[in-house]
Amino acid sequence: MYFSKHVPLFVLSRGDTDESVHFGSLAVSDVQGHLIYAVGDPDLVTFLRSTAKPFQALPFIESGGHKHFNLTEQEIALLCASHSGTDEHVTVAAAIQRKIGVTEADLLCGVHPPYHQETAERLKATGQPLTPNRHNCSGKHSGMLAFARWLQAPTAAYVDFEHPVQQAILRTFAEMCSLPVEKVALGIDGCSAPNFAVPLRNVAWAYARLCDPGNLPEVRATACRTITHAMTTYPDMVGGPGRFDTALMQVGNGLIVSKAGAEGYQGIGLLPGALGTDSPALGIAIKISDGDLRKSVRPAVVLETLRQLGALSEDQQQALATFGPRFPIYNWRKLTVGEARPVFTLQS
Amino acid sequence: MYFSKHVPLFVLSRGDTDESVHFGSLAVSDVQGHLIYAVGDPDLVTFLRSTAKPFQALPFIESGGHKHFNLTEQEIALLCASHSGTDEHVTVAAAIQRKIGVTEADLLCGVHPPYHQETAERLKATGQPLTPNRHNCSGKHSGMLAFARWLQAPTAAYVDFEHPVQQAILRTFAEMCSLPVEKVALGIDGCSAPNFAVPLRNVAWAYARLCDPGNLPEVRATACRTITHAMTTYPDMVGGPGRFDTALMQVGNGLIVSKAGAEGYQGIGLLPGALGTDSPALGIAIKISDGDLRKSVRPAVVLETLRQLGALSEDQQQALATFGPRFPIYNWRKLTVGEARPVFTLQS
Repeated sequence: MYFSKHVPLFVLSRGDTDESVHFGSLAVSDVQGHLIYAVGDPDLVTFLRSTAKPFQALPFIESGGHKHFNLTEQEIALLCASHSGTDEHVTVAAAIQRKIGVTEADLLCGVHPPYHQETAERLKATGQPLTPNRHNCSGKHSGMLAFARWLQAPTAAYVDFEHPVQQAILRTFAEMCSLPVEKVALGIDGCSAPNFAVPLRNVAWAYARLCDPGNLPEVRATACRTITHAMTTYPDMVGGPGRFDTALMQVGNGLIVSKAGAEGYQGIGLLPGALGTDSPALGIAIKISDGDLRKSVRPAVVLETLRQLGALSEDQQQALATFGPRFPIYNWRKLTVGEARPVFTLQS
Repeated sequence: MYFSKHVPLFVLSRGDTDESVHFGSLAVSDVQGHLIYAVGDPDLVTFLRSTAKPFQALPFIESGGHKHFNLTEQEIALLCASHSGTDEHVTVAAAIQRKIGVTEADLLCGVHPPYHQETAERLKATGQPLTPNRHNCSGKHSGMLAFARWLQAPTAAYVDFEHPVQQAILRTFAEMCSLPVEKVALGIDGCSAPNFAVPLRNVAWAYARLCDPGNLPEVRATACRTITHAMTTYPDMVGGPGRFDTALMQVGNGLIVSKAGAEGYQGIGLLPGALGTDSPALGIAIKISDGDLRKSVRPAVVLETLRQLGALSEDQQQALATFGPRFPIYNWRKLTVGEARPVFTLQS
């Protein structure tokens, strides 16, 4: 019998009866790697997917590549993005590509309709073809191509596991997680780039360090600060209109870093001071076991986690209330037929 | 801490690492109500959603209403349907409504875009409004209106819990489950009709009885046979092109009744002989805990359950192979990046 230590995180009820239950796990770590809170299985090894993006940009920034190519802070934010594929996102991606001397035809991410519904419908209605820059990962891929240029490595097969760009990313990611490279399980992401599976607690630790990198070598610490400052200054680049990462960072006063990944993954970094004057940085890694195809579970679980941590004021909670942590369930005639609610408590 | 007895049913892996896990429960019962197999929690009380539809049509058929209104077998199949909203489905729904003297404006199901993608896109492209007959439940609602007419009850509020139609449906459903009416928890369905929550094992029992009603009163037994014959003869009415219920009943040689419900629910009835000469009827009730928004988990779990029961020949399994029980996972560039597989074993 297949075993799993995931526990119920979120429940949808109808009338007075519970109807659906989402399982999952989460870990909260401080910058020293202490597991502060956990729910379910903090040792669960699974893929970060796009939650890895800040770390996939890190060695490029650390190497000074962004200065060489004169990338703006907005463009750095896009390197870390799962963007919505709006015209604005495409414009920024194309600007990066011009600076590094590639075109979107060099991107190996494939194509998908933009996440931004209106843009997707407009492209379809006007018969415009989908191009790689509309892909939510086009910023990440542009960053990998930039890194290849900067390393004077081939740009042709930059997503191969053995490519210098991917090897540098893997090393940096493993270091941020305090794991030997051999302990990082590999897989191919939806966008064809390598992706990483490590325990949730190590990702929480990596996000804590990203947000308080004082104990890291200075050049890496500076790169971490460059990335978190770019993401929190341009949250619209990291996601898009109506997206949770964007909304959370917009109300976060520069103290919250939020990066979703496919299949119900989420990384959150709380910068020093996010929990009040002199509060230490924390990192959070969350996996919704079933992948959250519902799309509303992960935001609600994040908000409940932040609520229990005391990371959000009443006003901040109010500004994010459409994302949860509780919300009514409506039917096709807009009658209220039930409620969705978190059902977990952070365990020290 | 919220507790749940659901267990892992289905896993998606990436590379060599498991990425997402879907939990759930299932029950297999014979016609005497013996729990033959279970996985997870066979006593789980949750909503059947559209899996209830054959039972929601039952008291109307039992009362002879379909004869009074001269409904065809195809139309009876639509009463039990979660149809795809194609033009053909709409034509059949409208035909029922003409026979009973109502119009689709009398339906209280609300509207949603047709499940059938091409139809939805055509309606949108040609600016045709969505109407209630496109709703997957328009057949069920037409049946409820027909029953109201036949009972000479008001047609205005036929979805109210207290309406004679809903009271008759509730009584019949409770009897089929061998439960007192008070033990049936109520909720409002997506289509605004009452819906029922009872233990999985009782739904499995009800489906077994539906498929082998010999021990029921003759008039009910005949109505059960009318319903299962209509559903297995017109499986395209019960679902639509590419839908799992339709495909399974099409290859089932009239011996398998399949009815999905929202939020990952599934009822299956195996008629006598489905497991080989002289095999007894069985009923199966399955709940994918998270609601299966992925849409591919429930079909795969059904196929794995039927495979373990020995209910499908090699040829039948081959004909349904696009639904699972295992399937590869592709990325945006159509590279194979992982595999999805069931991870449960039926327990006696």
